Amino acid sequence: MRPQGRPSFTGRPGTETGGSSAQGRPSLPTQFVNFSFFKVDPAWRRLSESEQEKGKQEFAAVVKEYQGKPGTFVLSYSLVGIRSDAELMLWRIANDLETFQKMTSELMKTGLGKYLEITYSYLSLTKRSVYVDKMDPEHQNPRTHIIPGRSKYLFIYPFVKTRDWYQLSFPARQGMMDEHIQVGSKYPSVKLNTTYSFGIDDQEFVVAFETDDPKDFLNLVQELRETEASRYTLRDVPMFTCIRHDDVLDALHTL
Amino acid sequence: MRPQGRPSFTGRPGTETGGSSAQGRPSLPTQFVNFSFFKVDPAWRRLSESEQEKGKQEFAAVVKEYQGKPGTFVLSYSLVGIRSDAELMLWRIANDLETFQKMTSELMKTGLGKYLEITYSYLSLTKRSVYVDKMDPEHQNPRTHIIPGRSKYLFIYPFVKTRDWYQLSFPARQGMMDEHIQVGSKYPSVKLNTTYSFGIDDQEFVVAFETDDPKDFLNLVQELRETEASRYTLRDVPMFTCIRHDDVLDALHTL
Amino acid sequence: MRPQGRPSFTGRPGTETGGSSAQGRPSLPTQFVNFSFFKVDPAWRRLSESEQEKGKQEFAAVVKEYQGKPGTFVLSYSLVGIRSDAELMLWRIANDLETFQKMTSELMKTGLGKYLEITYSYLSLTKRSVYVDKMDPEHQNPRTHIIPGRSKYLFIYPFVKTRDWYQLSFPARQGMMDEHIQVGSKYPSVKLNTTYSFGIDDQEFVVAFETDDPKDFLNLVQELRETEASRYTLRDVPMFTCIRHDDVLDALHTL
Amino acid sequence: MRPQGRPSFTGRPGTETGGSSAQGRPSLPTQFVNFSFFKVDPAWRRLSESEQEKGKQEFAAVVKEYQGKPGTFVLSYSLVGIRSDAELMLWRIANDLETFQKMTSELMKTGLGKYLEITYSYLSLTKRSVYVDKMDPEHQNPRTHIIPGRSKYLFIYPFVKTRDWYQLSFPARQGMMDEHIQVGSKYPSVKLNTTYSFGIDDQEFVVAFETDDPKDFLNLVQELRETEASRYTLRDVPMFTCIRHDDVLDALHTL
Amino acid sequence: MRPQGRPSFTGRPGTETGGSSAQGRPSLPTQFVNFSFFKVDPAWRRLSESEQEKGKQEFAAVVKEYQGKPGTFVLSYSLVGIRSDAELMLWRIANDLETFQKMTSELMKTGLGKYLEITYSYLSLTKRSVYVDKMDPEHQNPRTHIIPGRSKYLFIYPFVKTRDWYQLSFPARQGMMDEHIQVGSKYPSVKLNTTYSFGIDDQEFVVAFETDDPKDFLNLVQELRETEASRYTLRDVPMFTCIRHDDVLDALHTL
Repeated sequence: MRPQGRPSFTGRPGTETGGSSAQGRPSLPTQFVNFSFFKVDPAWRRLSESEQEKGKQEFAAVVKEYQGKPGTFVLSYSLVGIRSDAELMLWRIANDLETFQKMTSELMKTGLGKYLEITYSYLSLTKRSVYVDKMDPEHQNPRTHIIPGRSKYLFIYPFVKTRDWYQLSFPARQGMMDEHIQVGSKYPSVKLNTTYSFGIDDQEFVVAFETDDPKDFLNLVQELRETEASRYTLRDVPMFTCIRHDDVLDALHTL
Repeated sequence: MRPQGRPSFTGRPGTETGGSSAQGRPSLPTQFVNFSFFKVDPAWRRLSESEQEKGKQEFAAVVKEYQGKPGTFVLSYSLVGIRSDAELMLWRIANDLETFQKMTSELMKTGLGKYLEITYSYLSLTKRSVYVDKMDPEHQNPRTHIIPGRSKYLFIYPFVKTRDWYQLSFPARQGMMDEHIQVGSKYPSVKLNTTYSFGIDDQEFVVAFETDDPKDFLNLVQELRETEASRYTLRDVPMFTCIRHDDVLDALHTL
Repeated sequence: MRPQGRPSFTGRPGTETGGSSAQGRPSLPTQFVNFSFFKVDPAWRRLSESEQEKGKQEFAAVVKEYQGKPGTFVLSYSLVGIRSDAELMLWRIANDLETFQKMTSELMKTGLGKYLEITYSYLSLTKRSVYVDKMDPEHQNPRTHIIPGRSKYLFIYPFVKTRDWYQLSFPARQGMMDEHIQVGSKYPSVKLNTTYSFGIDDQEFVVAFETDDPKDFLNLVQELRETEASRYTLRDVPMFTCIRHDDVLDALHTL
Repeated sequence: MRPQGRPSFTGRPGTETGGSSAQGRPSLPTQFVNFSFFKVDPAWRRLSESEQEKGKQEFAAVVKEYQGKPGTFVLSYSLVGIRSDAELMLWRIANDLETFQKMTSELMKTGLGKYLEITYSYLSLTKRSVYVDKMDPEHQNPRTHIIPGRSKYLFIYPFVKTRDWYQLSFPARQGMMDEHIQVGSKYPSVKLNTTYSFGIDDQEFVVAFETDDPKDFLNLVQELRETEASRYTLRDVPMFTCIRHDDVLDALHTL
Repeated sequence: MRPQGRPSFTGRPGTETGGSSAQGRPSLPTQFVNFSFFKVDPAWRRLSESEQEKGKQEFAAVVKEYQGKPGTFVLSYSLVGIRSDAELMLWRIANDLETFQKMTSELMKTGLGKYLEITYSYLSLTKRSVYVDKMDPEHQNPRTHIIPGRSKYLFIYPFVKTRDWYQLSFPARQGMMDEHIQVGSKYPSVKLNTTYSFGIDDQEFVVAFETDDPKDFLNLVQELRETEASRYTLRDVPMFTCIRHDDVLDALHTL
């Protein structure tokens, strides 16, 4: 894993395909990305405090074990107090699908896991965007790797475009992306991570925005409603607001 | 928090963005708004009366603790007898997201909380409207703060406009808002609070109406169906009718 | 409560707004209407017969108490053997919302109530129709009150019209209503009660038909499909067929 | 009940309205039809084998009691291994709605019934079709009665046409039905039963096909996709494939 | 069962109808195909390890018994860590529907089966495609049989085309299929199995892709979005990513 500067929203989608890049520079392999949302069975809350604590410790130990693996990222977020259908979220990045399977299998066997329901799970891959960032073309260097940020808030939604979008000429689409990028550049505090799900999950993209200022993000999304590209959105819900907890145990203690 | 007069429905949406206002007057910071809907597990009703009472007291104590915090509002409503999918609603206003998280975390750990399911939760922000209130333009003073009313009934719905709306010219939209405001001005008993959810939740707006007369509100909504703006509604359900209980314990005793 | 003749389907929607009528005659106050649908937890069926009987008696006692209140109607129906998502239905009419809340609160605390789930609940108000009944204009006397019938079967559905309907001129809509009324007049055995839900629940209307002959009603609905107004229906499901049991205990014994 | 020859798919929908027919011949009374789909609570599978067997015997006894009543049909099918949302289906035909209510009430009180969930239930009536079968017009004799067949497989779906269909002229619709009938006539092994649900349930029709050869039926449905009438289908799912078990106990033993 | 070479995606859909083929060659009988998705009740995870192991052994024994039957295939996959609504998937192929029923009945009676919920189940048949593979027409030999591959990953989705597709002329559809096949031929690592569900389940087709490289498949699906045929897709979700475990016990151990 080669770390690199955080791409801001400004037209740099933050990901590209693996393999050698068009410019002949070597590039990093594709990353697999998963966002898993959990909710606790109310019966969990009726267990003794010590049993709850033991279960959380077991769960946290698995998370920390995987956080230590090379090429693997596991970030923890809480949605308690925000949504009705999810309370905990793990953002996971790995070099293969099997890592997600093995880790989830271990998580669900912990004391806490036995009382968790996975309410949403989104699978995606990193990939180079087909669109050029005209505002910053020299930033088109290899970026197939996401370095998940350390912002306080994360906003995620699965995204499906209309089939009409895919019938447009490439220049028409590039033009609309230019407008989209220009609006985004007005909100430098917001970092965008776009990942791809065609054929491997129900959506086409999973989009994850990181920022410390929810109002900035709200204003950005409202302003994007008036762009031309917005007309080609088929589905962009559910929209999840997640609060980051650096230590997974802190996230678990909100449950 | 600076209290202020209750904006009526008459073209004064009751909220605006924080930061210094266009007229150079200082304004209040943005408020975070949350509507949480709860339903009790039928198993709760099979507990002994004393255990139920103890659980309610614990739940009420948390509510009252937060009601005492500066800048925080917690209003309690019951939907028992009205809807099938919600029985209790807390309308919460705070200066940050973390307050909602911490409070919900504490609520769910009370005796009652262990038997509650959150069936809906709507997150939004206060923000200045982009539209001018032509019927009362001088009322465009800073109103980024909601002062939740003390009406007997509250009507809430999440609201999404069609994408076509956002492609209209601003003057066309302003014109339709003028018509909308004019209809609203015929029902002075109804107070409107509009809050914004772009990107932070599944809807674009959460709209909350306060009134003492449900029939007035019904007539207003029916009359609005014939306005031009009504054609640009994509979704405005579920529509919740909530009965206010000043003391949260009174709301809990309807469960 | 002033009883009055049962309006038949023939263009007399059976309800109108309160307040003094246009013709200067005094009128009755608005009624609140609620249709609550219940389903028993299968665990209920595993209780001893005596415990079940006790629970039903408690539930029936609450129903009967409210049946005795002036201005309040509670009619009981069973849907066992007909639908998968509801088994018991209470049609309630009262002068305020608080009556529904208080009664439901009491019902859910009975032995049976502790094992009931409310699967649907529709809230509405009585109101004078804006359309004239050309087939029987002299019947436009005050009818803001529903006198629930004593027919064997009740057919209910929530109803939402398309937004296009509300953009039509009033004469165009009146014309379509004339056609609608004319078809209805061919089925005198079917009595229609239309109530209004704009803004207070997810639908615009709740429509309840009473008849002793399900086939008559089926033929009426099929014939209405070919009217012009039918094109402006956005949603008219779920459609509930309910069998009336005069004594609520008889309805409970079908559970 | 007057038995009669099995109508094939060939334009003879198998049902007509009761009352004296247009041709002056006496006809049989309308039949009520119900398709009830059940799923067992997994907790059922954890009961002792003898308790399970006792519960099945009780359930089967109720079925057999009603099978013996004049004018009543109860046929049993299993969907185990085929769908995720239903395991057992009872096809019931009776002369009134009350029979379904009484029978279901008794079924749910048996040892097995206490662990059953009804996942779907479709209610309909037999009725004479408004379309003429040009391929076999002399078969327009009274057929308001369904004689449920004894084929190995039953395919059922609820059916809703678009509102545009009902705005077409009758000759246009008759023409499309002619094409539909002509395609059907190529698959003589498939028997169609059309029943009517306008106003009494969420769909307009419930369609039930009987055959011994699933591939024949699949080919028929695929070929019908290309007919003109197919464009006027609004909804035709869920589509249930059911395997007939002559003895209800055999169906119960698949659970 | 006559084994045969694995058809690649390149225009050879891998299945055709039974009966004697157009070219007069004898062909194999139709296969029935089922994809069953399971999820464990969280209560399962709270059982003792030895009880869990016993339950898995019983479940595996049933799977292995059916794997040994002639003409029957049972392949096992895990979705743990990938989706929220399914954890285990069995891909089953048999010569009749009764085999699925009998096997599922036995599976659900095992120690593990008593805690399993079937969350999705798709039923289909093999059938010759009506379209010609212009890129490889000589491969149109009998292929009514699927030989399920041994790739690491399987991607499955139920598929429904718009009714407009079926109104197009056959040459127009063949032309679009030609384009579709040409795109597919660029990804030789991806093997396609198309099966048919018209009338026997909610979808028209069940499509299953086998590959060792998820990125190849993602790129293929993304590229297909721009083909003409893509505009005639009505529904192609849920999209399941499944990881193959040769031994069913290995799949069970991920639970």
